Amino acid sequence: MATACSVAAEALSRHGSVVDGRRRAVIEHVTPQIDGGRYPIKRVVGDVVVVEADAFADGHGDFACCLLFRKADDATWIDVPMAPLGNDRWRAVFEVNELGCYRYTIQAWADHFATWQHDLRKKVEADQNVTVELQTGAVLLAEMSQRATGEAAMTLKAWSARLAAALTTTSGRPDPNPRPEAEGVSDTLPEGTGLTPHSCALPVPKHENARPPASGGVQGGPSPEPFNALVALALSDELAEVASQFPDRHLATTYDRELAVIVDRERARYSTWYELFPRSTAREPGRHGTLQDCEERLPYVAAMGFDVLYLPPIHPIGQAFRKGRNNATDAAPGDPGSPWGIGAAEGGHFAIHPELGTLDDFRHLVSRAHDFGLEVALDLAFQCSPDHPWVTEHPEWFVWRPDGTIQYAENPPKKYQDIYPLNFESAQWRQLWDGLMEVVLFWIEQGVRIFRVDNPHTKPFQFWEWLIGEIKSDYPDVIFLAEAFTRPKLMSSLAKGGFSQSYTYFTWRNTKTEIAEYFTELTQGELKEYFRPNLWPNTPDILSEYLQFGGRPAFIARLVLAATLGASYGIYGPAFELAENQPVSSGREEYLDSEKYQIRHWPLDRADSLQALIARVNRIRRENPALQRDDGLHFHQVDNDQIIAYSKSTPDRRNVILTVVNVDPDYTQSGWGEFSFDALGLDPHQLYQVHDLLTDARYLWHGPKNHVEINPRVVPAHIFRVRRRIRTERDFDYYS
Amino acid sequence: MATACSVAAEALSRHGSVVDGRRRAVIEHVTPQIDGGRYPIKRVVGDVVVVEADAFADGHGDFACCLLFRKADDATWIDVPMAPLGNDRWRAVFEVNELGCYRYTIQAWADHFATWQHDLRKKVEADQNVTVELQTGAVLLAEMSQRATGEAAMTLKAWSARLAAALTTTSGRPDPNPRPEAEGVSDTLPEGTGLTPHSCALPVPKHENARPPASGGVQGGPSPEPFNALVALALSDELAEVASQFPDRHLATTYDRELAVIVDRERARYSTWYELFPRSTAREPGRHGTLQDCEERLPYVAAMGFDVLYLPPIHPIGQAFRKGRNNATDAAPGDPGSPWGIGAAEGGHFAIHPELGTLDDFRHLVSRAHDFGLEVALDLAFQCSPDHPWVTEHPEWFVWRPDGTIQYAENPPKKYQDIYPLNFESAQWRQLWDGLMEVVLFWIEQGVRIFRVDNPHTKPFQFWEWLIGEIKSDYPDVIFLAEAFTRPKLMSSLAKGGFSQSYTYFTWRNTKTEIAEYFTELTQGELKEYFRPNLWPNTPDILSEYLQFGGRPAFIARLVLAATLGASYGIYGPAFELAENQPVSSGREEYLDSEKYQIRHWPLDRADSLQALIARVNRIRRENPALQRDDGLHFHQVDNDQIIAYSKSTPDRRNVILTVVNVDPDYTQSGWGEFSFDALGLDPHQLYQVHDLLTDARYLWHGPKNHVEINPRVVPAHIFRVRRRIRTERDFDYYS
Repeated sequence: MATACSVAAEALSRHGSVVDGRRRAVIEHVTPQIDGGRYPIKRVVGDVVVVEADAFADGHGDFACCLLFRKADDATWIDVPMAPLGNDRWRAVFEVNELGCYRYTIQAWADHFATWQHDLRKKVEADQNVTVELQTGAVLLAEMSQRATGEAAMTLKAWSARLAAALTTTSGRPDPNPRPEAEGVSDTLPEGTGLTPHSCALPVPKHENARPPASGGVQGGPSPEPFNALVALALSDELAEVASQFPDRHLATTYDRELAVIVDRERARYSTWYELFPRSTAREPGRHGTLQDCEERLPYVAAMGFDVLYLPPIHPIGQAFRKGRNNATDAAPGDPGSPWGIGAAEGGHFAIHPELGTLDDFRHLVSRAHDFGLEVALDLAFQCSPDHPWVTEHPEWFVWRPDGTIQYAENPPKKYQDIYPLNFESAQWRQLWDGLMEVVLFWIEQGVRIFRVDNPHTKPFQFWEWLIGEIKSDYPDVIFLAEAFTRPKLMSSLAKGGFSQSYTYFTWRNTKTEIAEYFTELTQGELKEYFRPNLWPNTPDILSEYLQFGGRPAFIARLVLAATLGASYGIYGPAFELAENQPVSSGREEYLDSEKYQIRHWPLDRADSLQALIARVNRIRRENPALQRDDGLHFHQVDNDQIIAYSKSTPDRRNVILTVVNVDPDYTQSGWGEFSFDALGLDPHQLYQVHDLLTDARYLWHGPKNHVEINPRVVPAHIFRVRRRIRTERDFDYYS
Repeated sequence: MATACSVAAEALSRHGSVVDGRRRAVIEHVTPQIDGGRYPIKRVVGDVVVVEADAFADGHGDFACCLLFRKADDATWIDVPMAPLGNDRWRAVFEVNELGCYRYTIQAWADHFATWQHDLRKKVEADQNVTVELQTGAVLLAEMSQRATGEAAMTLKAWSARLAAALTTTSGRPDPNPRPEAEGVSDTLPEGTGLTPHSCALPVPKHENARPPASGGVQGGPSPEPFNALVALALSDELAEVASQFPDRHLATTYDRELAVIVDRERARYSTWYELFPRSTAREPGRHGTLQDCEERLPYVAAMGFDVLYLPPIHPIGQAFRKGRNNATDAAPGDPGSPWGIGAAEGGHFAIHPELGTLDDFRHLVSRAHDFGLEVALDLAFQCSPDHPWVTEHPEWFVWRPDGTIQYAENPPKKYQDIYPLNFESAQWRQLWDGLMEVVLFWIEQGVRIFRVDNPHTKPFQFWEWLIGEIKSDYPDVIFLAEAFTRPKLMSSLAKGGFSQSYTYFTWRNTKTEIAEYFTELTQGELKEYFRPNLWPNTPDILSEYLQFGGRPAFIARLVLAATLGASYGIYGPAFELAENQPVSSGREEYLDSEKYQIRHWPLDRADSLQALIARVNRIRRENPALQRDDGLHFHQVDNDQIIAYSKSTPDRRNVILTVVNVDPDYTQSGWGEFSFDALGLDPHQLYQVHDLLTDARYLWHGPKNHVEINPRVVPAHIFRVRRRIRTERDFDYYS
């Protein structure tokens, strides 16, 4: 016989050894599910997972379906009955309360007990003889009593015996004079009938020889009772309730995949990042900043309401081919080089650049940051300068050219001779992987729990899946942010493979249509299960054209958009709050005098700093849970393309924020908005209040259509808290 | 260390033993694919399978992707290079030319050779020194020569040697005076450099110690030649062409699933069914028809253009609880009973009802039918009358009740005491499965290759998957039609599990919106990969209300809809062609005096028979390949809800049929249609002809808007062949 056509059919063709052909349920289209269960979905502690599945069996009987879930390391599953949604779709939810990995799957089965009760009811209603049906029930309950324990087992046994007594009535209809010689069922089953009860012809040992009760030969049954009492018992909710606790699942079908959820701490979903170069934190100009200087900067950063302080690489910087100011090919004497040119005589990824300080200084910074409610995030840039110790310690980790030199980074015809990429195709790839994991573990030991990963898309996807999987199985609180500005499918794949957060295209999405389309895709489609956006208006690599030309209104608009569209966002400061907007040359998005290549001294106290506004925006985020999550985003219509309006809400609609932004940095724009009451959680017939949390202005609105007008020179955005107006009979109006 | 969170991550965490971490390609979202590869897609011989996948690798290098396919029983895969569609999506096609099962999957890899050539070109264009790059090319070509055979291997070796000679030029730029002492590469690789070529640091034995060529110590190289000749060689299309034949796939990623295609003969897609009761085929009224009578009916059926003659069960009919005329609970003496009440003293599923004839008669019928271009399809109704031999031979195949009786079929409070369902939860399920397979094999031995399966949704899904899989692996030409009128997901699941064709909801889809929605779902969504609709305007079980009340126009309209919407359709005759439309009672869809319970004598020659019209419609189907497939269906707009217009076309648009039906059986309806030129394969600026194949009328149309008017009392439909008008300079207009 030739091979069967599908994997499943092949399994079935070996049915003698592998498959129990009596499993009748089919389970399909389980959601959420990424790529057929290949990758886990993501949640944070306290979230619920709503699981749905198509499930059904052949025939017309009743059917039951349950969700199974467990912490990945627990041996036992927890059951949750699923509720039917119609059209053979079922739903149940479970809550994830601990960090780490959960698994879930589905089990479904033809429910013989429910079918029996259901059919019995119809027959009784049609006044049919149900004697045999009660006997069948007695068998079902007797079997059930063997699955039950304690009191329930006793109860079921007793009920079984009562139903079995129905055998002695002849009509199967209410009999006012039950015969005194009626006999019940007992554990000792009668021999010789050769009958196989249809619900339990099972190979489960304790049931193996189960036979239905029959008349004769059985002792010790209960006293006879009226037939209609037995029918009432059989149809009772009490019996159904007890039965539902001991379903017969020995022929249940289990979904062929175990799906996984990775559960992070809340900061994986909601975080507010501030990036700075420690070497630029010296109080006085001209001095190389240190980690101690950086520590002094903590109150400033904390006062703006950030909770993550992200530092570019803090390792020794190579001398060979070191880049000069503004990315000059040759560094001038004293040029500090790029922090991403990692590795020098003083060490590599395990070391701290001597001019920044010591490992003790770093641990102190981490600890002080913690006092200010800040976590220090480090940069994982897995590449080396030609001076990195690994070049001599592990030459096999690099690509060697036929001329005996190591291959430097290039994007022909551009050459980056200050950078040696690691060779992930090395025969020594295992040692390389382990070596890189040691780096992560080293910094975890120093107290770091958040890593921003530099260019992860230039290293193999399965390396990240392995690394993040290994780290998080021991340190489930670690967060990885993927800095991959690359093609969409690569970005999604990194997120699927384990990155907790991802940089996005936000920086280049400026028009209303672009923003609405992109954030709808991120928050409504499959991406929402695993891709957590982290929005950056600027980075040391990106000074967008919009910021270059839009002046202060552009900075505020982009800040508000990032902070309200994304539960996680970040800025690179102090360049951002000081609205630094000079590019290195026209048409480029590189900063002039970029901190990547030189030390800057920033006038933090400048009167026009956005410091206070940023603090306000971040306080709004902290006080409004709707802004701490990415679901519940809804774009509202405005009849002016320069005005974007969207709301975010908590699932219960108790917190609703409506943000309205004028993306034209030059002119006042106005228009009529048409707001969805459903998204805003409002009663369409009542007044409601919108309270601008940026300016404290309050407006009373009514109906879906309202006018907005925004002068960018004042504030280019509203962040409205939407408040329902609630009436009581004996009170003034007040606002919820 | 705790368990990793996904199955894949778990595999990776055991990377030492299982996974090669150097595989850099990712392959996702392969289509077509049913439920993550759980079920095969379906095609017929000669079809193509268009396969697409997302595929990419980390980094910026070139990338290659190929489709692999094979007959399931072949050991070796056939490669088809995939073409990029943009956004990291790739496509390739393969043709399925044999019956049976094919498998396909995807392989992808970082293409080091293409990357090298690509980068080299950019460097040459930027006038950079490329000496080392040519050396790297020499290594790549030397390795490639080991993968190649014969002449190609020699050529590659020679090219490698020429490029290796570039080492002796110092500038790396065109050198008009190449040094005569230049030396090339040979199979004897130099020792001592310790270099690892980046593209092939591989553990493949023959490459294990491969080292790049270096200067010195190598004998027998080619003569030195100008540097620009070497560059020209390196960048040549010829070299790229040869290289593309020997890609380095040792680090290729293979998609983690093998997907399957079940390939049927064309009749699985395109078939025209006629159902009749053999016992009603006697020439003279009152006599029980025989298989010989049925044979005499063959010319009549064939003349109408059918190719499948489907017979309800032909087995002995039980006596116990036999149903009388019009489903009476008690049969009168002489009532023949329902053919679905299978099994009597004379035998069960292996026997022929004695009044119909013998097994020889049956084989003769099959053979004669063949002469008329007809295949005989049998009914597989896996259920038994109480008189079936299995009841005594295999009592364990039935459900026994506590009172020692066998459970009859019921839908409480209804009882079907003439039918014993089989117990698929029997402990003897394996024997039952085998027993049922024997039935199928027995009739296959009698020449049957098409089975219509009665109520498959009341038997376990995995039983069908097993049965059909086993049968088709030995008899890939067998076709199974699922008669499951049940909930949508059960119907799809049966089709996924192997049924070649499926009954549909067509019978109850009467309005324009219902029809357009339903057939769009069937032909445009995922269903198109595995669900082949077979449309029946009537069956012995279903006389729809539309037919009851619409008279002859309703019969014609439903015939035309079925025959042009479905590549497969069927009618139950002669009830259909004689427009039998009396229900057993008002509000029911059962026929009065149904042939299920009694013998009928049909006046085939009645003047108003639809026989000729059916013949015409079936000839139109035979002559127009667009109607022999279900893809290419497009609904066109008509501004009258009683008029439905849709076209079907072959993929090349050479055959296009536009059907327009007035579904109002009572009144003339007219309206303006707006026809899609794209769907019709027309040039919007030219006249075109629509030729009504039902009436032979021809109309010249121009532009998308055209008027249609249909009087249902004449013919309620047009079946237009759409003909492009083609001009030549020296000819009259004519029609393609």
